[in-house]
Parts: sequence; C-alpha cells; structure tokens
Amino acid sequence: MKITILTLFPEMFEGFLTTSIIKKARLKGLAEIEAIDIREFTDDKHNRVDEYPFGGGQGMIMKCQPVLDCLKSVRTPQSRVLLMGPTGQQFNQAKARELVKQDHLILLCGHYEGFDARIRAYVDEEISIGDYVLTGGELASMVITDAVTRLVPGVITEESHLDESFENGLLEYPQYTRPVDYEGHTVPEVLLSGHHENIRKFRLKESLRLTLRVRPDLLENRNFTREERKLLDEVLEEEEAREEAGEGLECPEIKPDLE
Amino acid sequence: MKITILTLFPEMFEGFLTTSIIKKARLKGLAEIEAIDIREFTDDKHNRVDEYPFGGGQGMIMKCQPVLDCLKSVRTPQSRVLLMGPTGQQFNQAKARELVKQDHLILLCGHYEGFDARIRAYVDEEISIGDYVLTGGELASMVITDAVTRLVPGVITEESHLDESFENGLLEYPQYTRPVDYEGHTVPEVLLSGHHENIRKFRLKESLRLTLRVRPDLLENRNFTREERKLLDEVLEEEEAREEAGEGLECPEIKPDLE
Repeated sequence: MKITILTLFPEMFEGFLTTSIIKKARLKGLAEIEAIDIREFTDDKHNRVDEYPFGGGQGMIMKCQPVLDCLKSVRTPQSRVLLMGPTGQQFNQAKARELVKQDHLILLCGHYEGFDARIRAYVDEEISIGDYVLTGGELASMVITDAVTRLVPGVITEESHLDESFENGLLEYPQYTRPVDYEGHTVPEVLLSGHHENIRKFRLKESLRLTLRVRPDLLENRNFTREERKLLDEVLEEEEAREEAGEGLECPEIKPDLE
Repeated sequence: MKITILTLFPEMFEGFLTTSIIKKARLKGLAEIEAIDIREFTDDKHNRVDEYPFGGGQGMIMKCQPVLDCLKSVRTPQSRVLLMGPTGQQFNQAKARELVKQDHLILLCGHYEGFDARIRAYVDEEISIGDYVLTGGELASMVITDAVTRLVPGVITEESHLDESFENGLLEYPQYTRPVDYEGHTVPEVLLSGHHENIRKFRLKESLRLTLRVRPDLLENRNFTREERKLLDEVLEEEEAREEAGEGLECPEIKPDLE
C-alpha cells in the first residue's frame, strides 16, 4: 500500500520515516510512505499558503489553492483522502483495519488555525485521533500511518497481533520478564509453572481485570464466552474483597520511593 | 516547564523537537524538552534492553533494569511520571490542562511487546492517546508533549485558544479565507458583511451544527446558555428539513470530481 502525507512540515517526518516498523515496512517494499510539501504548490509570489479569515478572528487559515493543487497532483481514482482534524470522526483500531485495505491513502495535515472549510468538499472524510488540540495534523498523520502500516501483512508477525490491546476487545494482560525478583516485586508464580492452560487462564483473567479497572466501557456491549463470564465473576468478587479490605491498586497508588 | 521523554528511539524526535511550536517554545525558553536514550542505561554486556516473557508468548518485553535506572537518573520529587500505554486512562484536553501545571513531566515510551508489568509500580499513571495500537509509545509522547506545550503561557497567543475545538466543549466553527469563490464554492455571505454580532451568532450556530453532526456525545451533558439552546433548536429544525428533502451534507457525501 501507499501512504502520501501532505504537509507544510515535511522535515518533521524524517525521524519517523527512518525508524523502527515504518523503516522496516519501507525497506521490505511492503509500504511506500512519502511526505509532500504543500508549500511547493502555492502560486503566491511570496510563497504564502495562508491568509486571515473572513469575518475576523485569530490566526491564519490555510488557503484552498496550494492545498488543493497539491492534492490534485497526487490523487488518483484509487486514492482515499483523509483530512486530519479535531472535528472529524474518531480514529480507532477498527478504522485502522478498514484503512489498511485501501491501495492509496492521502493524509492531509492542517496547521495554523486550520483549513478553509471549502477544502472539506474535496476530501473523503475528516478524522481525529482524540479529544485534544494539536498544533497541526502532522502527529495525527504519523499516528494513523503507524497504526495502519503495522497491520500490512508481513510487517510484523501475525501472532503478535492476537493478544494486543483492543484486538480482542480487551486490554492486554500484564507481561513479565527476568529477573524473577526486582526490588521485591516478584513475577506471578503461575507464569513460572510451565502449565500452559493455567497460564492462558491467568492471562485472560488479568486482561478482564485490567479492562474492568481502567476501561469498563469496553466491557459494556461485549459478548462474553462462558469462560470469560466465569473469570469476570471471580475478578468482581476479588475486587470487591480488596476494596472492602481497603487495599489499593499497585498502580498508581503504591509507589516505592526512588532515591 | 520541563518534559523528559525516555525512549529507545531518541532519533525519532529530531524533526519533532526542531519544528513549529515545539521549536518556538524551546527557543523562547518557555519549555525544556529532551529525549533520553533508555539503552544507555542497560547493564547488559550485549546492550540488550528486552527479554522473552515468562510464561511464553510472542515478542520481547522491556526489562525493569534499564528502564528504571534511566527513570531514576532523571526523576526528582517534582517529577510526574507518565507511562505511554494502551491500557492507560484516555488523554484528552482536560488532562492536557492538568499536566501543563506540572513542573516536570517524564514520559516513558515502551516498544516491542511492552514493558515488564512491574514497571507500573514506579510510575504515577498510565496514559493512552486513543483506542488503537501503535508500534511504540514515541508518537503518544509527542502528541502529549505538543498538546501540553501549546498550553504553556506565551507559547501561542491567549486568544488562539478561545475558539478551538474542545476548549469550549464544542467543535470549532468553519473558517474561510480568500478567494470568495473557489471553483464555485463560495464563502457564506454573513462573513463578508462586517456585522460582528451576526458573525458571532453564525459561528456559534455552525459550531453547534458541526458538533451535532459529528460528535453529538459532546452535547449530552452540556449546560447550554439560553442563546445556545435557541440556536440549537434552529439547527435541529434545519437539519430535519434537510434530511426530509433528501439532501446530503457537503462533506463527505458531495465531492466534486478531480481531474
């Protein structure tokens, strides 16, 4: 697949495009990812890409001409054009799985106080990565590129996807590695037992516990298996007992002192 | 304020730290932002920072020793430590406004399949930027750094904050700049009228309309002013009439062809 990012700050993408999964996907030829400079398309003799808004107000608005000439130069009938913006639909993992099926994504990044609203008529959809205000669309486009690229077959091993947070509708269970004891914090014994079935159950139960604690909204419309229902009942009983005993959670309440 | 990012990929931050608002905030001395390489703190003779998980499973887990030795080297009693992770609380604009009051934020970025769970005992909170899976915590740390830094007094003009999406609980109204006609798409006449009160009302009404269309959840628990309630009633009537007439929205349904 191909991802084309349209931006006023292509230099922001250098580190991103040459690190980790994105670098690997590009070197393997699994994904072509490019950042194009919108400013190169302006027909303004002073190279400007923005103007004051009609009706007054703070800041500058990105003009139609450079943005849309840039878009038209890269768009094909196979392209899907996404505008990065806080007034868009929320990006999530289901959306990432949908986008990875496209041949060509064009991610349009705003900056300053935003785009001329008429630019929306030329895009397929507007998308937001969360309920917060960012300086520009650049970080949002990197987030979407990263989340989508790692789903391209061959970029990471298939098995890596299975237990991840959100992929099965639950948060991921806690993981531990050596040493067994770190400053008095020990690894749960079941993980050292070699008993695969007990380990699987422990992990499913701790996934349910973590999701219940942190993101109970993810459990609301879930179709539980019989096993999940049983384990969740155990978790609920244990959590209730813990609360009655006045015990806190390890994170964030209990925090060892650091010298 | 100071933001320290702990990462295995400090080179990913180069473009980010030297562009736009972040660059400006650093040059003005309003924010000190640094990326520290966790790998420099490993005591492993092969420079490794990760190991296989106890109990089996895919991928590698970041070990306690390098991560926590790195953390201990930069932590002070004034530090607030945030772990970037999908199992955290959701980051949003209210959280950004809370974090900007801190003297020192430490943002801890995981990579590979995640952290040894015991690392959570050493952080103040775990935070997630959205319901999607990323390769590592690096982009999340940039998103939080950007959203927080632009709230540091003096980084952008105070007025710029007032009309932004989420700041007043609504999505931002559409903005327009020259030309008045772009390929047949025209600027709403009221914005050319110079009538400030009508322009203010138009913008408030269009903010309400956009929020209703795209993010009705933001309206659910809102305390509306009398004016907002009246304008929202008008919007609801207009939207109903539009739907009855079978008319679509300009974005994304109506999309001019691009040659």
